[in-house]
Amino acid sequence: MTVATLLTDFGTRDYYVAAVKGVLLSRAPRARLVDISHQVEAGNITQASFLLAATAPCFPPGTVHLAVVDPGVGSARRMLAVEAAGQLFVAPDNGLLTPWISDGRAYFIDRPDLYRPSPGQTFHGRDRFAPAAAFLLAGGRITELGAAARDPVFSPAALPRRTDHRLQGSVRHVDHYGNLVTDLPAEWLEGRFVEVRLGGHRAGRLVGCYAELEPEEVGVLVGSLGTLELSVNGGSLARRWSAKVGDPILVALSGK
Amino acid sequence: MTVATLLTDFGTRDYYVAAVKGVLLSRAPRARLVDISHQVEAGNITQASFLLAATAPCFPPGTVHLAVVDPGVGSARRMLAVEAAGQLFVAPDNGLLTPWISDGRAYFIDRPDLYRPSPGQTFHGRDRFAPAAAFLLAGGRITELGAAARDPVFSPAALPRRTDHRLQGSVRHVDHYGNLVTDLPAEWLEGRFVEVRLGGHRAGRLVGCYAELEPEEVGVLVGSLGTLELSVNGGSLARRWSAKVGDPILVALSGK
Amino acid sequence: MTVATLLTDFGTRDYYVAAVKGVLLSRAPRARLVDISHQVEAGNITQASFLLAATAPCFPPGTVHLAVVDPGVGSARRMLAVEAAGQLFVAPDNGLLTPWISDGRAYFIDRPDLYRPSPGQTFHGRDRFAPAAAFLLAGGRITELGAAARDPVFSPAALPRRTDHRLQGSVRHVDHYGNLVTDLPAEWLEGRFVEVRLGGHRAGRLVGCYAELEPEEVGVLVGSLGTLELSVNGGSLARRWSAKVGDPILVALSGK
Repeated sequence: MTVATLLTDFGTRDYYVAAVKGVLLSRAPRARLVDISHQVEAGNITQASFLLAATAPCFPPGTVHLAVVDPGVGSARRMLAVEAAGQLFVAPDNGLLTPWISDGRAYFIDRPDLYRPSPGQTFHGRDRFAPAAAFLLAGGRITELGAAARDPVFSPAALPRRTDHRLQGSVRHVDHYGNLVTDLPAEWLEGRFVEVRLGGHRAGRLVGCYAELEPEEVGVLVGSLGTLELSVNGGSLARRWSAKVGDPILVALSGK
Repeated sequence: MTVATLLTDFGTRDYYVAAVKGVLLSRAPRARLVDISHQVEAGNITQASFLLAATAPCFPPGTVHLAVVDPGVGSARRMLAVEAAGQLFVAPDNGLLTPWISDGRAYFIDRPDLYRPSPGQTFHGRDRFAPAAAFLLAGGRITELGAAARDPVFSPAALPRRTDHRLQGSVRHVDHYGNLVTDLPAEWLEGRFVEVRLGGHRAGRLVGCYAELEPEEVGVLVGSLGTLELSVNGGSLARRWSAKVGDPILVALSGK
Repeated sequence: MTVATLLTDFGTRDYYVAAVKGVLLSRAPRARLVDISHQVEAGNITQASFLLAATAPCFPPGTVHLAVVDPGVGSARRMLAVEAAGQLFVAPDNGLLTPWISDGRAYFIDRPDLYRPSPGQTFHGRDRFAPAAAFLLAGGRITELGAAARDPVFSPAALPRRTDHRLQGSVRHVDHYGNLVTDLPAEWLEGRFVEVRLGGHRAGRLVGCYAELEPEEVGVLVGSLGTLELSVNGGSLARRWSAKVGDPILVALSGK
C-alpha cells in the first residue's frame, strides 16, 4: 500500500481532480488517495508550497505527494520529482518544491513513454504528472524518471529576522477561521514577549489556546506549526484587520 | 478493514483535514477514510451533532467516527470516546456526542503516550484526536483509552411536543438545497395534517416527493430522516422565507 | 478491488454524500470511492452528463459510476443502469446517461429487495441508487438489476456544425478558472483558423498553451477534451465576457 496526496488549484466543481485520480488508480490500483486541498488560489505557487510543507510530515514514509499548481502548463517549464525526508514529491519545476530541493535529490521528469496521449497542452496534471506519480506509486524508482536536476527553479522566501529587541516576519497563511499564521518561530520569544504589531494594530496578550481569549479579544499564541499565530475570539481576524498573506509582522521583546 | 469517518469545521482550503488523515494512515494504514463534511459552521457543535446522527446509521458496524468541532481546544475541556450502536465515536467532550452517550459507554481519553508532540495547543485534531481514533482503528480497545466517563457534557436539545390539535417543533437543519428539515416525526401526523406554520408563512400541501410540487409551490413532505420537511419547487425555501435553524415550526392537525 | 465514482448535486456541507458512501461500504466493503464532484448545479442534468463524459475514460475498466442528479426523485421516473465502454453507469432515467445509451446496454433498475427501507421518498441516492451500485461493485451482474430498457429518456444535445468557411458550436462548460470549453473538435480547424466570435467578442490568436498569452490577452487553444477552448491570461474569461454555458460560438475559417 502506498499513499498519494493531491494538492491543486483545480477546484472541486470540475472533473479535473477526478480525472487525475482515475489515471492514478488505472496505473497504481492499490494507491491510497488523500486530498490536501484543491482550493489553492489559481496559480498561487507560494500558497501550495506552504500547504504541502505543513502537511507532508504527518504522512507515512514513502508517501507520494502530487502537487499541480501549474500556470506554465504546456510551456517550456520542466517537471520535477524530488526525494526528501523519506517521501516523494512530483510537481512542476516552478518553485513549488523549493522547501525539499536543498535537502533532497531532484530529477527532471522526462518519460514521454509514460505520458497519456493529449489532445492539447492544457492538462499535464492528467496526462503527464499523474502518470509520473503513478510510476512511483507502482514501485518505479525516481532515478528512472529522468536526469538529476542541477538547476531547478528556486522560490526564495523572505526569511524572518531577529534582533535584540524585536522579531520581524510576515503573515505566512490566513487559515479557514481567519487566523493569521506567521513565519516567526515561537521559540524566538524566549519568554520576552511584549506585543505584536501589524500595520496600525497591536496585540499584547499571549495565551495558551483560543478559549483563553475573551469574546472579541485579539491574542497571540503558538500555532500548530510552531510559529506565532494571531487570532480573535468569535470571528475572522483577517477580516477584522484587513490582513493578508505577506503583511509584515513585528514583535517587540523586553530586554534580556 | 475498518472505516473511519471525519466531520470537522476545518474547511477544505487548509491543510488541517489532510494532516489528520496523514496521522490516521501513519498509525492505521488499512483504515478507509470517508469525509462526512468539513464545512460545519465554525464551532457549531449542534450542527455537527445533527450531521453525525444522520450519517452514522448508514455505516458498517465497527466504524470509527472522528468528529472535531472544538472551540475549546487546548483548554481544560476533556476528550471523549463512546461506544454505541456497534460503532465508535471520538470527539471533544462538549456535547457533540450527546445522542450516543445515554445508550452507550463513554470514556475520557487520557493517553499522553499516544499523542503527537505539539508545538502549540491549537490542533488537537491532529495531535490527540487522530492518534486516539487511530488506536481504535488499529484494533485497540476503547476501555484502554481512559476511565469511564461519569459526567460527560450533555447538550440538551429542545424536544418537539405534541398536543391533540397541534405539533410544535423547530427547524433542525437547512440543507444544501435550502430545504427546511424539522424535528417533527412524520408519524405524528396520523393522517390529520392541515398545515404547517413558520412565522407568518404557511404551507398546506402534503406531497410524496419534490416533483409533485408546481413551480414555485411550497410543500411539506416526509424527509430522508423520517421527519417533516418543507421545500419549494425551484429554489431555496430557507432564502425565500428567511428561515434558519432553530425557527419554531407549528403543525395544525384536524380533529381525530 | 473495484472503483466507484460519485457525481451529485448534493453539495459538501450536508450528510448526503457520506450517507451514500456508508451504504456503498456497508454492502461492498472493498470498493474504492472517488468523488467526481458534488457541486453540480442543483438539478442540472446536462452539466452532470458533461462532467461524467469527461471523467469516465480516465478510469479503469469495470469502474462503477454512480451519478445522482435527480430532480424527479420519488416520482414515476425510472432508474437506469448502463454497461458501456467496459464500465458501468447507474443514474436516474432522466437523460443523464444519454452519451452511453446508444453504444451500451441499458436496464431499468427494479430490485426492491435491495433497497433500504425509506422513511420518505426524497433520498433515493442513499436508499435505492447506492444499493444498486453496491450490488454491481460486489460482483452482481447488471442483467440481474432489471429488464432491458427499450425506451430510456434521451437528452438530445445540439451538435456542432461545420460548413466550408465556418464552424458553429456553443460553450459546453465553464471551468473552475473561467475558461470557456466549447463543443467544437479542434481537428475541424484543419489549419485554417481565422478567429472565434462569441456575441460581440472576438479572439484571433491560436496558442499552444495558456502561458503563451500576454497578460490580459484572450486566446484560443486546444483544450483537455480535444475541443477548442477560450481563455484569458490572468482572470476568468466567463466573467470578463459575461459568457455562460449554451452561448453560441462561431469560428471563421480561411479558404481551403
